[in-house]
Amino acid sequence: MITRMSTLFLRTLRDDPADAEVPSHKLLVRAGYVRRAAPGVYSWLPLGLRVLKAVEKVVREEMNAIGGQEILLPALLPREPYDTTGRWTEYGDALFRIKDRKGVDMLLGPTHEELFSLLVKSEYSSYKDLPVTLYQIQTKYRDEERPRAGILRGREFVMKDSYSFDLDDDGLKASYDAHREAYQRIFDRLQVAYVIVAATSGAMGGSASEEFLAESEVGEDTYVRCIESGYAANVEAVVTPAPEPVPFDDLPEAVVHETPDTPTIETLVAWANATLDGSYDAADTLKNVLVKVREPGGEWQITGIGVPGSREVDFKRLEASLEPAEVELLTDADFAANPFLVKGYIGPKALAANGARYLVDPRVADGTSWITGADEQGRHVVGLVAGRDFTPDGTIEAAEVVDGDPSPDGKGPLVAARGIEIGHIFQLGQKYTEAFEVDVLGESGKPVRLTMGSYGVGVSRLVAVLAEQHHDDKGLRWPKSVSPFDVHLVIANKDDAAVTGANDLAAELDSAGLDVVLDDRKASPGVKFKDAELLGVPTVVVVGRGYAAGTVEIRDRFSGEAIEVPVGDAVAQVVAAVRS
Amino acid sequence: MITRMSTLFLRTLRDDPADAEVPSHKLLVRAGYVRRAAPGVYSWLPLGLRVLKAVEKVVREEMNAIGGQEILLPALLPREPYDTTGRWTEYGDALFRIKDRKGVDMLLGPTHEELFSLLVKSEYSSYKDLPVTLYQIQTKYRDEERPRAGILRGREFVMKDSYSFDLDDDGLKASYDAHREAYQRIFDRLQVAYVIVAATSGAMGGSASEEFLAESEVGEDTYVRCIESGYAANVEAVVTPAPEPVPFDDLPEAVVHETPDTPTIETLVAWANATLDGSYDAADTLKNVLVKVREPGGEWQITGIGVPGSREVDFKRLEASLEPAEVELLTDADFAANPFLVKGYIGPKALAANGARYLVDPRVADGTSWITGADEQGRHVVGLVAGRDFTPDGTIEAAEVVDGDPSPDGKGPLVAARGIEIGHIFQLGQKYTEAFEVDVLGESGKPVRLTMGSYGVGVSRLVAVLAEQHHDDKGLRWPKSVSPFDVHLVIANKDDAAVTGANDLAAELDSAGLDVVLDDRKASPGVKFKDAELLGVPTVVVVGRGYAAGTVEIRDRFSGEAIEVPVGDAVAQVVAAVRS
Repeated sequence: MITRMSTLFLRTLRDDPADAEVPSHKLLVRAGYVRRAAPGVYSWLPLGLRVLKAVEKVVREEMNAIGGQEILLPALLPREPYDTTGRWTEYGDALFRIKDRKGVDMLLGPTHEELFSLLVKSEYSSYKDLPVTLYQIQTKYRDEERPRAGILRGREFVMKDSYSFDLDDDGLKASYDAHREAYQRIFDRLQVAYVIVAATSGAMGGSASEEFLAESEVGEDTYVRCIESGYAANVEAVVTPAPEPVPFDDLPEAVVHETPDTPTIETLVAWANATLDGSYDAADTLKNVLVKVREPGGEWQITGIGVPGSREVDFKRLEASLEPAEVELLTDADFAANPFLVKGYIGPKALAANGARYLVDPRVADGTSWITGADEQGRHVVGLVAGRDFTPDGTIEAAEVVDGDPSPDGKGPLVAARGIEIGHIFQLGQKYTEAFEVDVLGESGKPVRLTMGSYGVGVSRLVAVLAEQHHDDKGLRWPKSVSPFDVHLVIANKDDAAVTGANDLAAELDSAGLDVVLDDRKASPGVKFKDAELLGVPTVVVVGRGYAAGTVEIRDRFSGEAIEVPVGDAVAQVVAAVRS
Repeated sequence: MITRMSTLFLRTLRDDPADAEVPSHKLLVRAGYVRRAAPGVYSWLPLGLRVLKAVEKVVREEMNAIGGQEILLPALLPREPYDTTGRWTEYGDALFRIKDRKGVDMLLGPTHEELFSLLVKSEYSSYKDLPVTLYQIQTKYRDEERPRAGILRGREFVMKDSYSFDLDDDGLKASYDAHREAYQRIFDRLQVAYVIVAATSGAMGGSASEEFLAESEVGEDTYVRCIESGYAANVEAVVTPAPEPVPFDDLPEAVVHETPDTPTIETLVAWANATLDGSYDAADTLKNVLVKVREPGGEWQITGIGVPGSREVDFKRLEASLEPAEVELLTDADFAANPFLVKGYIGPKALAANGARYLVDPRVADGTSWITGADEQGRHVVGLVAGRDFTPDGTIEAAEVVDGDPSPDGKGPLVAARGIEIGHIFQLGQKYTEAFEVDVLGESGKPVRLTMGSYGVGVSRLVAVLAEQHHDDKGLRWPKSVSPFDVHLVIANKDDAAVTGANDLAAELDSAGLDVVLDDRKASPGVKFKDAELLGVPTVVVVGRGYAAGTVEIRDRFSGEAIEVPVGDAVAQVVAAVRS
């Protein structure tokens, strides 16, 4: 197909859009791929839609290759199934809720576990029907608090979501592995640089979850990896190696000290080094951060989080550990209402005495000794021993992970990096099949409750990720698998013979099966070259000054290399360049 | 590609769904093409999605062929542009409105004139850029009061909507004609039986509009046509030929009569024939129907609609004539609040005397004489002459159109039929480009306001229309252009050789480029044949009893004909059948 730029609905912009901060957002707008329609809501112009469809095609092919069956569910959904699973409320403000003309509650689907569970329940009844993997490529809605970076985090976006249903754990594992491999093939074909990281687990009862993160400085997700072992994990999923319990029989008794003007860890450590024997640092202190936690449908409960004073509480890790409960920092009003909480001097004892929950970092193992608050203004306690002087209600992964922390596999230090979530695979287990009683008749004649996996790829986000990973200061540089066109043919010579020659060349490339965009506009070669660089088609052909001497130029947008080839060889050479 | 029914996500149902009334709805559910997710909201299962995509493909190809450029706008839209055009309120309850987490009003797009106008305004600036036709195949939302018949009238549905922008009326006409022809090609290729009918015009100032109606008994749209001339029109668009004014100098004066117990036309005509000279029928009486009308943003205003007593007021025609104003029948409370309205005896005089608007059927031409209400209980006036004794505020197309009415082109009688709207083309003119000031710099150096066309095809509805027009009592019968598969291959013989042979045949048909569904289930031949008929793939191949003797059967789902062919010829014969 030949697309003529003289009639193409495309206007490139010289300047970055005012609201754009990241390169992909700037370039996709400047190059006329997308336009903003509302905050976090974008329109796809012809070139953007071509890239989106190309990404969809790769995703579809790899999903079909693992036996996925494509269906299409609505975006406008009834409330009831989301009430059954509790997600109608759990989603909070992120859910777009609607009342229809009859006042009936509906929602715009953020993800479709509920509906797929109900669908399989309604259609399937026998173990012979299983396993099954269903998927859709569909428009999703999430009312993000901070939509950002154009299509990177939108409120309306395209996802591939799939759901596997199996009879047992082995089946689920096989479906999960098939998705994992399909995702690797998808991202490899798309030429996305990515890592697979362990994601939060545990809350679902041992079920596994991994994220595919595109490597990117502008990513919102922080992950860590161990260069030595290849271990990689979402920061939320990093497990702190717990030290062995230490015997505490010989440890000195805890002593309360007057520690005036030591409301911070820094001032407390200075006091300790000035007053006590030995040398102390922040890791010797126990910092207690107060939050309130609410289980779904429950009441807010005051909870202390104890971490070594050398580390901050990472709120995302804390949230992930407590999910699906909500968590918030205590307000001044909360402190006022609970006078046993002495700001700056909080210790484990008052929490226990007043019925508050107390969760500690795994490093606060039995037998470890701490300097911590004595629950009185201007007083700390020294030598408070875990398991002897206080007993936490449990451990929690809430402390920040820092560069150099030991990898959970014990093979070296962790280093942090940033990424963009492009895929997530999840062994859900029976969470949804329990909620909807999705059973089939088993081989033994008894009902079997199915076990389920859920898997997502951010299809529209991938367009931004590709732009993010493949650009230079001149513009976009699409991998061949997703470029809006195979060839960008520039007419940079006004002579009739050259114009005719360029049109003939376009027709021949079209006949050879290539998708050609022909810059036939009345514009200067300089403008056209700039636009070609901005649009980012990987192979650029220039019919320019050399045409009179019988040559055209083939430019490689990635390497920047240009070669002159005889007109007669042009088609073969361009085809070779495109197919290489 | 080969799709095996043993693993296909498909369950056919023996019984019609309880909520289904029309054949397409019953069959698409029974055959496992779609499933209901909420009232008027459906999920597309694998077979349904295949048909939907096939329809999309035809639509896309024909839109591209007329130079349409595909883009994709969001469904979630900002309120502001719809405020500018007044449609935020005009749409009434049919619009799905949403408040986002910040309390900002948004909506789910029912159609996208506003956004396309803004997009062209933002991208284009010169006459050299025009004309342009943009389209999308996208999910739309309308909160229908009565969603019905499955996907025939859903609240979430897929449409192709396109918009043309031109510099002048000739350009608009050309864009309109191109769409008209593209639509004919689309519906011809899809094998839909349809008529093109004149749709309501006038309100937009002379702009043209036509609807494409699929012929169907279950259609909600009534249209009329003149067999003699080929004229066809939506009932809302039928123009009543207005009689010439009659001189009234010689007509007798109007006389008020006591007409006790004549609150209906029937009783009034009986009274006239019993009391007056001559012979009277309902067409001699003038019936005045009271409604209230509200212009956008205005107040309700009482309006009398005068029609010959022989005809009812057709509320849809009335609404179309008054659009964009709203119209409602008067309530008892309204009558009570306006005592000059004497129910059953309303005449033109009291309306005029009390400042109510009075609109009449075109047949109530100047000089025509009527028996009508005298605005007093039990009294009518005889010989009330239009233009002499009363002067209406205008004429209105509100009276019902009945079989045998004269065609507006004067070439014969009209006959009524029912249809389903599958396409609508509209010369909008400058309604939206005025609202958003969509101007470009003209050739003369002065700004030119663009003129616009809007064109829609009901893509998901077409799936139902095709099922409606192509089925028999056994099931669906898809035209080849949209069938979910090319061939339905039934294994109806358990012998290993036959099973192997069927699999080999499927592989060969696949190699020949056909899309094959292979019924490899452990079910009886009878069950498989029934399902094949229900699913409706046009070419069915049976590997059955004859296999041992070296033959397979090829059945034509449309004609019901079956032929036995030698196994060796099967591929060639099936390919020929599919391609025929």
